[in-house]
Amino acid sequence: MKIARFSHHGAINFGILDEGDLVVLNGDPMFAGYDTTGERVPLAEATLLAPSIPRSKVVAVGKNYRDHAAEMGGEAPAEPLLFLKPNTSVIGPGDLIVRPPQSNRVDYEGELAVVIGSVAKNVPAADADRVIFGYTIANDVTARDLQASDGQWARAKGFDTFCPLGPVIETEFDLTAAALETRLNGSLVQSAPLTDMIHSVPEIIAYASAVFTLLPGDVILTGTPAGIGFMESGDTVEIEVSGIGVLSNPVS
Amino acid sequence: MKIARFSHHGAINFGILDEGDLVVLNGDPMFAGYDTTGERVPLAEATLLAPSIPRSKVVAVGKNYRDHAAEMGGEAPAEPLLFLKPNTSVIGPGDLIVRPPQSNRVDYEGELAVVIGSVAKNVPAADADRVIFGYTIANDVTARDLQASDGQWARAKGFDTFCPLGPVIETEFDLTAAALETRLNGSLVQSAPLTDMIHSVPEIIAYASAVFTLLPGDVILTGTPAGIGFMESGDTVEIEVSGIGVLSNPVS
Repeated sequence: MKIARFSHHGAINFGILDEGDLVVLNGDPMFAGYDTTGERVPLAEATLLAPSIPRSKVVAVGKNYRDHAAEMGGEAPAEPLLFLKPNTSVIGPGDLIVRPPQSNRVDYEGELAVVIGSVAKNVPAADADRVIFGYTIANDVTARDLQASDGQWARAKGFDTFCPLGPVIETEFDLTAAALETRLNGSLVQSAPLTDMIHSVPEIIAYASAVFTLLPGDVILTGTPAGIGFMESGDTVEIEVSGIGVLSNPVS
Repeated sequence: MKIARFSHHGAINFGILDEGDLVVLNGDPMFAGYDTTGERVPLAEATLLAPSIPRSKVVAVGKNYRDHAAEMGGEAPAEPLLFLKPNTSVIGPGDLIVRPPQSNRVDYEGELAVVIGSVAKNVPAADADRVIFGYTIANDVTARDLQASDGQWARAKGFDTFCPLGPVIETEFDLTAAALETRLNGSLVQSAPLTDMIHSVPEIIAYASAVFTLLPGDVILTGTPAGIGFMESGDTVEIEVSGIGVLSNPVS
């Protein structure tokens, strides 16, 4: 099932994607279930929004694909390398990625994102599915120059607009059959099966939830494959995960 | 004025500290102002809670005192070195700091904390006072071993219970006359005038708000002076800032 958060005629609602329509839900399905209002809104008339605004945090994993670790000039770490992006960096599909004046190089990083559905602390990998609400797509936008000069990545990866999420949350996603592709102005720049991840989603949830309590709506970014690169003003970056959709954002 | 958030007979409220009593407020003064209910609760009967739970983030500054940068084996950076602690790490006065099994060395770091009172983006240093709600005290608890081995500080500084805040928010605080002292089991381990900070509070707000939108309730930790050290099970760490109070927490 594909869940969208959207605005239509000034109202913000959640809906289930159904043959070109959004079946409108009573409230946030993460908390209120799948009770429908009876309304249908044509997808073409709706503006999709970020499908989750984390109550607490976006937890991200660095260097979780071997070929990307290599292109960054290092080896993949033995354990997941965690960092945080603030909820204020989240934007939705179609929203503008703003290149800040502090940076001369702002990169895309296409990633699979996990949306947490319930309070999660010390969750064993075998139970990780129980705390997953669904999956979406993320762009882990990074000021590559500041990432190097700061050492800590909070600024380089935390600017406002640096975490596009969407277009929808797929609640029944099988990543073993799925691939990620990133296109910059239509040209393929990243392409990898999701099974190329070093640390699996259940392993990441177990590792992260042993550190932080994860709250419903929190999002986990699972790392980017090789092929990262910079974006310029007027570019459009599209990230596709088969089975979920395409997250497209223009660049300022 | 000293503002506390507290529980009393099962209800959570904000109050103004007044001669051993809490004058109960109608709602969160950050949003609802200082309208009082007419009730007074003896401070001794109340349990103080973290005075703010950030809606978004705790922004912290590393190495903002020269003597601490030196004890960490480095120089102070020319610009504020920002990192993030999640809101799930926040606890209140008297709450237990839990040393996680992943770490063999968990340190205290006494710090002055700024509580943001309004939405803040690209705030010039000269206008920083306008977005400050008040000041409190923080312990930037750090798993020192993981800080070194991870490189990124998100895990080492982000564990649940690693951000004690309190005991109150002082809304009329003059840091030029104030000093910070940390005591471990009663022994003085950190002592510095707050004017020893390298980057001032207005400079930090200008720098951070040029990266992140700061939301009401977000907290900025301004760095720790020299004298950091580890805590063991059964220890009590007290951080005092003259003019604000004493933040005391036991250690698991």
